[in-house]
This record gives sequence, C-alpha cells and structure tokens, in this order.
Amino acid sequence: MRLAELSRRSGVSTATIKYYLREGLLPPGRQINPTTAEYDDGHLRRLRLVRAMIQVGGVPVATVREVLRNVDDPALGRTIRLGAALWALPQVPEPDEDDVFVQAAHREADELLDRLGWSNAKLLTTLSPAYRALVVAVATFRRLGYDWGSELLLSYARLMHEVAKLDLDLVEAQPSEAEKAETAVLGTVLTGPMLHALRRLAQEEESARRFGFE
Amino acid sequence: MRLAELSRRSGVSTATIKYYLREGLLPPGRQINPTTAEYDDGHLRRLRLVRAMIQVGGVPVATVREVLRNVDDPALGRTIRLGAALWALPQVPEPDEDDVFVQAAHREADELLDRLGWSNAKLLTTLSPAYRALVVAVATFRRLGYDWGSELLLSYARLMHEVAKLDLDLVEAQPSEAEKAETAVLGTVLTGPMLHALRRLAQEEESARRFGFE
Repeated sequence: MRLAELSRRSGVSTATIKYYLREGLLPPGRQINPTTAEYDDGHLRRLRLVRAMIQVGGVPVATVREVLRNVDDPALGRTIRLGAALWALPQVPEPDEDDVFVQAAHREADELLDRLGWSNAKLLTTLSPAYRALVVAVATFRRLGYDWGSELLLSYARLMHEVAKLDLDLVEAQPSEAEKAETAVLGTVLTGPMLHALRRLAQEEESARRFGFE
Repeated sequence: MRLAELSRRSGVSTATIKYYLREGLLPPGRQINPTTAEYDDGHLRRLRLVRAMIQVGGVPVATVREVLRNVDDPALGRTIRLGAALWALPQVPEPDEDDVFVQAAHREADELLDRLGWSNAKLLTTLSPAYRALVVAVATFRRLGYDWGSELLLSYARLMHEVAKLDLDLVEAQPSEAEKAETAVLGTVLTGPMLHALRRLAQEEESARRFGFE
C-alpha cells in the first residue's frame, strides 16, 4: 500500500507517519520509484504499536526506539527479548539501597519468590525493573507503618500469576515472533489501566454484595 | 500525645503537621491549655493516610480534603462511603460520548457486567468513574484496531474479582468504620503499583517457564 492508504488504514496522519519514519520508529517502505514507497501489513502493525506507546502509554520517542530495537533483535532469545522490550518501558524510581526499609523489603520480596516457587524470576532479580518496583512498593508500605502481612502479598501474587498466564497465552497465539514481542509490549501498556478499572468495578460489586447500599 | 510525639511517631515534621491542620486534612487536637493540644491514635492514623495519598499517590491537597470528607461522613452507608471516597481520587479523562468507539465500548462493558452477573456494579454505572475508566480502556483498544475478544476481558474481570475479595477482606478486618474507609482508600492508592509489579514479575516467571532463557 502507498503512504496515503497506510494513513487511512491506521488513522495516523501522513505528516506523523513521515515523522515516525525520520525518527526510525517505522522501517522505510520498499522504494518502487524515486518518489513512491510501498508499505505492508508489518508497517501497519508497527504503526499501531508506536501509536499505542506514545498516545496511550505516554512513552517518550527515545524510549519507543529502544523498546523497538529489543523487539526486533533476532539475537535475543524469546524470554529476554520480551523482557528487554518491557524493561525499556518507563520505570519506578530506583530503590535507595542504604534505606533500612528497602533492605527489609528485599528480604521480604526474596522470601515471597521462594514461597511462590518463582525460581526463574529469582534468577532475574538483579536485572529486572519489575523486581525493583516490587521492592519500592513493599518498602513504601512498611515505611508508612502498615503491616498487612506476607500472606496477603502471597495471595495477590498468585492471582497475578493467573493474569500473567492469560497475558502469555495471548502472546503465544500470535503468528510471528515480531507479533509476539509486539503483543507483550501492548499488553503491558494497554491492559494496565483496564485491569485497574476492572479491579475497582469488582470492589464496587463486592462491597455492595457484602454491605448492601445502606 | 503532644505535637512533638505525633511528629516523631508519624515521621512527619511538625511544620507539615501544622500545615495539614490549617488545611483541614487533620482534625484539631483536644486543647488542654491555650498553647498545647493533645493528639490520639486517630490523628496518627489519619496522618499516615494523608501522607500516603499526597506523597505516594500524588493526590492534590484539595482532592485529599474531598476524599476525607466522604470517609468521615456518617450519613453515608458503607458501600457509598467507600465508593465516594475512592471516586474522589484522580480519574481518567471522561469518555467522549459522541465517539462511535466509545458507544461500542459502552455496549461491550454492559454486556460484560451482565455476563459476570455484577448486577450491583451495573446499578452504579451512571455514577462510577471505574465504569467510565473501563469504557475508555476498551474504546482505546478497539480504536487501535485490536480485537482480542470479549472472552479475554471476561477472564481478566473474574481474576480482578478475586483480587477485590482480598481487598474487601482487608477492609472488613479493620476494627472501626473510620479505619475501614481509610483502608479502602489506601488499598487503592498503595496496592495498585504493587499489583502491577507482581504482574510483570509473574510474566517473567511464566515466560521463562514456557520459552526458557533461549
């Protein structure tokens, strides 16, 4: 398809598509003569992904470029490739390792991974921003004086494992490696707000069931 | 306890406590003489809640005041009281009701609530920001051209219902009505980032189990 059709089918203006091409967020089309390039379904898919990250996820252009470099790197194995793509997404602040609450949170997080039997995730703790985000969240809880117990954390983690299985089923159902990696990124950017909304709706439902509207 | 002890036990400076008192985020202490007020455990708890909302949740002072007004209103029944407290928290943009994707998302969300049997949540749809947030999330998916099917949404919603049951168990375990409402607010502000971190850790674990580190 030509640029105009790519624009029409994606809902992205030709000016914005040209900007993405210049910034390297979209690979060049196949030049069929000096003034015309031909684009394919891969371009359309990539355009949707870029738009989701920038417009919905609020991801900066430079970060989008880094995420895509990982998505496209055939030298990476699939777990690392998916992980590396996600790891480039915006992160929480780094934990302050001198803080006693952070040190205690590391112990609590490590013990949680042991109890869950998440041995693979445990191998990745020094690399993984998700692990650091968990440490920051647990340290914040404890610093504020809340002690809701490690059992609750364990129960939440088991439910999130079920969510992750759905996430990975969706990734596996994609036909190509590129689409698998793209779906992993999209899943995180787009479904986070959706899960949060569903949780709050479920809280309303459950609250009304237990307490009524009195 | 006196102001100095309240500051020491909460980790919040006396200057900040005085600011919260002036702004009405903390009820006045019991005046025991013209220059000295006495504070109790209720003040300590309220201070932690205010700090969690402002420092962790990034909630503006005016919004904190509105949340607390709902938390403290004995005229509200429990479901409405918890809901109203949460509904004052920062929201997603309002859906554009003239948009065809938003109109389709309303139908999809309503059908989802029917299939889930969430009849209470359905009664609240005209009031609930969580419902509007779901509509916005679904419309965004569809506008970007993704059709991941209503079955996936249903599966996610069922898991979030299990999460909400844990949330409500924690609320119910609190000894007083005030603490129940406070816990509902804290649960949403503090545990959102924690659940997101657990989901991403679970994705790493599950990805490594299915695909290895190749």
